[in-house]
Amino acid sequence: MGDNLVYKILKSHLVEGTIETGKEIGIKIDRTLTQDSTGTMAYLQLEAMGIDKVRTKKSVAFIDHNMLQQGFENADDHKFIQTVASKYGVYFSKPGNGICHQVFLERFSVPGDTLTGSDSHTPTAGGVGMLAMGAGGLDVALAMGGGAYYITTPKVCKINLVGKLQHMVAAKDIILEVLRRLTVKGGVSRVFEYAGEGVKNLSVPQRATITNMGAELGATTSIFPSDENTLEYFKAQGREEDWIEFKADEDATYDEEITINLDELKPLAAKPHSPDNVEEIKSIGKVKVDQVAIGSCTNSSYEDLMRVAKILKGNKVHNDVSLVIAPGSRQVMEMIARNGALGDIISAGARILENSCGPCIGMGQAPGTNGVSLRTFNRNFYGRSGTLSAKVYLVSPETAAVSAISGYLTDPRECDVDITVDMPEEFLIDDSMIVAPAEDGSKVEVVRGPNIKPFPVNKELGEDVEGKVLIKVEDNITTDHIMPSNSKLLPYRSNIPYLAEYCFNTVDEEFPKRAKENNGGIIIAGNNYGQGSSREHAALAPLYLGVRAVIAKSFARIHKANLINNGIIPMEFEAEVDYDKAQLLDQLEIVDIQSALVNGKATVKNVTQGTFFNAYINLSEKEIEVVKAGGRLNYVKIRG
Amino acid sequence: MGDNLVYKILKSHLVEGTIETGKEIGIKIDRTLTQDSTGTMAYLQLEAMGIDKVRTKKSVAFIDHNMLQQGFENADDHKFIQTVASKYGVYFSKPGNGICHQVFLERFSVPGDTLTGSDSHTPTAGGVGMLAMGAGGLDVALAMGGGAYYITTPKVCKINLVGKLQHMVAAKDIILEVLRRLTVKGGVSRVFEYAGEGVKNLSVPQRATITNMGAELGATTSIFPSDENTLEYFKAQGREEDWIEFKADEDATYDEEITINLDELKPLAAKPHSPDNVEEIKSIGKVKVDQVAIGSCTNSSYEDLMRVAKILKGNKVHNDVSLVIAPGSRQVMEMIARNGALGDIISAGARILENSCGPCIGMGQAPGTNGVSLRTFNRNFYGRSGTLSAKVYLVSPETAAVSAISGYLTDPRECDVDITVDMPEEFLIDDSMIVAPAEDGSKVEVVRGPNIKPFPVNKELGEDVEGKVLIKVEDNITTDHIMPSNSKLLPYRSNIPYLAEYCFNTVDEEFPKRAKENNGGIIIAGNNYGQGSSREHAALAPLYLGVRAVIAKSFARIHKANLINNGIIPMEFEAEVDYDKAQLLDQLEIVDIQSALVNGKATVKNVTQGTFFNAYINLSEKEIEVVKAGGRLNYVKIRG
Repeated sequence: MGDNLVYKILKSHLVEGTIETGKEIGIKIDRTLTQDSTGTMAYLQLEAMGIDKVRTKKSVAFIDHNMLQQGFENADDHKFIQTVASKYGVYFSKPGNGICHQVFLERFSVPGDTLTGSDSHTPTAGGVGMLAMGAGGLDVALAMGGGAYYITTPKVCKINLVGKLQHMVAAKDIILEVLRRLTVKGGVSRVFEYAGEGVKNLSVPQRATITNMGAELGATTSIFPSDENTLEYFKAQGREEDWIEFKADEDATYDEEITINLDELKPLAAKPHSPDNVEEIKSIGKVKVDQVAIGSCTNSSYEDLMRVAKILKGNKVHNDVSLVIAPGSRQVMEMIARNGALGDIISAGARILENSCGPCIGMGQAPGTNGVSLRTFNRNFYGRSGTLSAKVYLVSPETAAVSAISGYLTDPRECDVDITVDMPEEFLIDDSMIVAPAEDGSKVEVVRGPNIKPFPVNKELGEDVEGKVLIKVEDNITTDHIMPSNSKLLPYRSNIPYLAEYCFNTVDEEFPKRAKENNGGIIIAGNNYGQGSSREHAALAPLYLGVRAVIAKSFARIHKANLINNGIIPMEFEAEVDYDKAQLLDQLEIVDIQSALVNGKATVKNVTQGTFFNAYINLSEKEIEVVKAGGRLNYVKIRG
Repeated sequence: MGDNLVYKILKSHLVEGTIETGKEIGIKIDRTLTQDSTGTMAYLQLEAMGIDKVRTKKSVAFIDHNMLQQGFENADDHKFIQTVASKYGVYFSKPGNGICHQVFLERFSVPGDTLTGSDSHTPTAGGVGMLAMGAGGLDVALAMGGGAYYITTPKVCKINLVGKLQHMVAAKDIILEVLRRLTVKGGVSRVFEYAGEGVKNLSVPQRATITNMGAELGATTSIFPSDENTLEYFKAQGREEDWIEFKADEDATYDEEITINLDELKPLAAKPHSPDNVEEIKSIGKVKVDQVAIGSCTNSSYEDLMRVAKILKGNKVHNDVSLVIAPGSRQVMEMIARNGALGDIISAGARILENSCGPCIGMGQAPGTNGVSLRTFNRNFYGRSGTLSAKVYLVSPETAAVSAISGYLTDPRECDVDITVDMPEEFLIDDSMIVAPAEDGSKVEVVRGPNIKPFPVNKELGEDVEGKVLIKVEDNITTDHIMPSNSKLLPYRSNIPYLAEYCFNTVDEEFPKRAKENNGGIIIAGNNYGQGSSREHAALAPLYLGVRAVIAKSFARIHKANLINNGIIPMEFEAEVDYDKAQLLDQLEIVDIQSALVNGKATVKNVTQGTFFNAYINLSEKEIEVVKAGGRLNYVKIRG
């Protein structure tokens, strides 16, 4: 029986454990990436590890999140990252060079290699056949230090693509269709491997849109083969030498399989407030639009913007609509500036934003009160846009452009413009905004602004864990709920004490105060707790506030890893009814936690109610040691 | 004896008073402009006036300040302005269309006409021979309603330009030279009229740079003749019909005259933290640069950016420098996108910001801690950049571009690139982002978001004025000090109660609390109090906090008008020594204020110290009535 792509990479990179679904394995990481909002923490952690130089094939630090720069904090973070990167052998992509995933795809991706990135959309590079995974900053720091990355061996789900996308139906609609079928929990413990004849009809940027937004399924990652289309992309990027053919064996087996017929796919939209709330645009009805936003790591490629330009050319944006466009990279921006497409876009009345994440992460362009915003982005979580009352729809660039003209959410098939975009024979290649690290890092002085504070470190786990229920939250709580990251808070990503004051702010403003008054405690949560962004801050802020355990119905992968890495115990209700019974400020005691960790099951005493319930603690042996040590950094230090 | 330009316009627009230096006159206003940060207040005031439609030749509402849009507030303000403009017959320039002064110059300026704008850089339009004055929002609202605009008949100072700018010496250096000679107080009660042979060697955009930054002199405005160069500009803008020749009489007289020899002018910089702290770049010495910012209403024209592109072409921005460029208008942006210059700029490694005020008003791109920033802007007041420890230098676009490459503040004459830019025969003309008002305004519903709060209105003046000294400030306090306007506060320009909490924030954080605890009181200030931006908020926030009078050594023109408009009494120390004696929280009583207003002089009792001192109250008869009524809106209502 042959191997699928995922197993091929796992086998060639295995350093610990046995590849068997559900079992923990450690794999070697070839490359890493960071962005600035999670990067400062990752590099602080790298510094704490005491190595001289990163041990990966190549590590890259990008600046793409905090680009508004409303105070000294952002520029200070950029300077910290630039100098610490130079010192430790990391390449530095300057602010303005583009979004990490777009630039990584263009200039750094390598088929068959492994990648971890401190950003949940790191799977974008799966579009060229990398095993690319989002991780907490600490995991990326450990990988930079040469350490293995630990994951649960995932199920591999084959997504069999047949047929060909029809006029005005986009790669975005493919991943929206997957989300419609599988929901935001559908990818947990899975890698999605795209295969079938339909793959040949998709370019690398289209594939990257799909692997990118696979993150919204809760998947470990998504991957495409590296084939002739991939070669064409690498040739055009002047990187033919980085290309290898990388295909699943003919007789490869998969744990699961689903089929999508591209011929029949229709333009879709994810309605407010979840990426899986997907419906055909035609059936949604007439929705008046206030804002259209095109860009983000999902849909900001040269191809995407060329299609948008073709639709906009000769048309004007509706008087009542604000259309904003943020190209994905300087390469994209310069190319469309040089070939006239940017002129067409400006002429239509679009506002051009910097090559950065921008409004996708709430950095500007918040819609007005009750505003309807169509976005080519990947997440439409409640409040993420910066406006709580906004209604955000996730759509393809084609739908976005057509709707910007009409002023209403519009099925793009109503527009009959030819939007064929050929892959350029040669992309415009200029790496001058990527600064190579110093030859001799010891001579580099790391510049540390006053906003960069030490990160909290947990202490060794004792005999019992007890505390009050500090908050009880619903299903599908995102890291945006736990640690909001709007434009006012993002500049404080290197300052946990400040940030912690806003922990759970959109859900319950009293949480930080309550946590402090009770000397920390325990969080009760529903299913899929911690979905969304990879931000470690959703563990670090609760840690700073004294949270000792989270008892949830289930967890999202990266967030669970972040809790473990910081010594916060992730527990799962044995019976969901116990979730219902738990009340705010109930005093809980987890009896004999040391045995519970080993048994994988704890007895929790609800002192207030005088009752008991059970909760699973699904941890690998190594994870148990990490939790006992009070987190990964302690563990690494103990282990030496 | 012939008339100068200023007198010609004053005579043709006089509706009240006698034109005699120092005397108050009312003049008819032909055109108005607003931007969004002062505009919401202006339109709230227009609504309060109860008219159906504006009575100017043309009024335009621009959106250019609050473009980051981090919360619903900005988009709500934009929608409010768009709908209220449509209702009252005002043209609306959409966000993305550009900076008000740049777009006004391009598309709306008319030689010989009068303009008031709720922005201190309204004098930009003086570049084509308009009498263009910055004013508080209420004054602009009154002008929209057909009311006269009241000013003190200014002295007219001729600036005689001889010779021709040399290689890499810019229009910016001319105005920096004027500032060097005259200081930020040098323009008080004056209009600067540019004349002489040297004028012929300056294009309209160069002239506009000079009139724009004349605001920093404290001048009422600045003006150039309308000549062949002006005609060339209007032809290229497709507006030949708007052009008239407008020249001073051959035998025109002036109150003052100074001469600048352009042949001898050198590249200059205004060092931190004042626009008049000017020195030759060559003599400043080696300054390492962290950031370079090109743009703002001062230096963001097509010509400016073409020169920058020529310098940058084929070069790369220094690794340690972040270069940001914000074109002044969509016209500029599309033209440089179409002709390849934008490609050259991007290729050099510049970050492209939206066509808006951007970092000039602290909306993003705050430098890092202790960061050195070279900016082509008009103000380098302490803290205005968003970073208190930053050192901001004001320079020409040429100096900025050359220094961005070298990484150091560099005399641009070291670069021998030919930067000749010909005026295009035809600018790219597309007014599709300017929305015409509704035919029938009565049918337009004004959309009012929850952040838009009623503005405070003063009450009629009583017999005595008393209160504690709430704050005592130094010379040259700007409206940025009084009512800071960083990116965190700018979104609240329609919400005075919120904004008031930050009144004097950079000077004394306790001020709002102290004002409230003492039920308001009196401000003591030095010379040139209230220089800088035209923001009415620097009067409205103190009004909200109960400030009844400001006793200063002297006032900046627009701010004094704003105080009067809001019924706060502006008083000037007779003897400067009394400034020294006044102490924080001294109880002051202005005895028999009604007589004092008429006499132009008040006796102030310092109850705490048991002493008396005198203060002038220099108000016109009408201004006295305005103050008595408790502000201009009350006065208009009383007068019927």
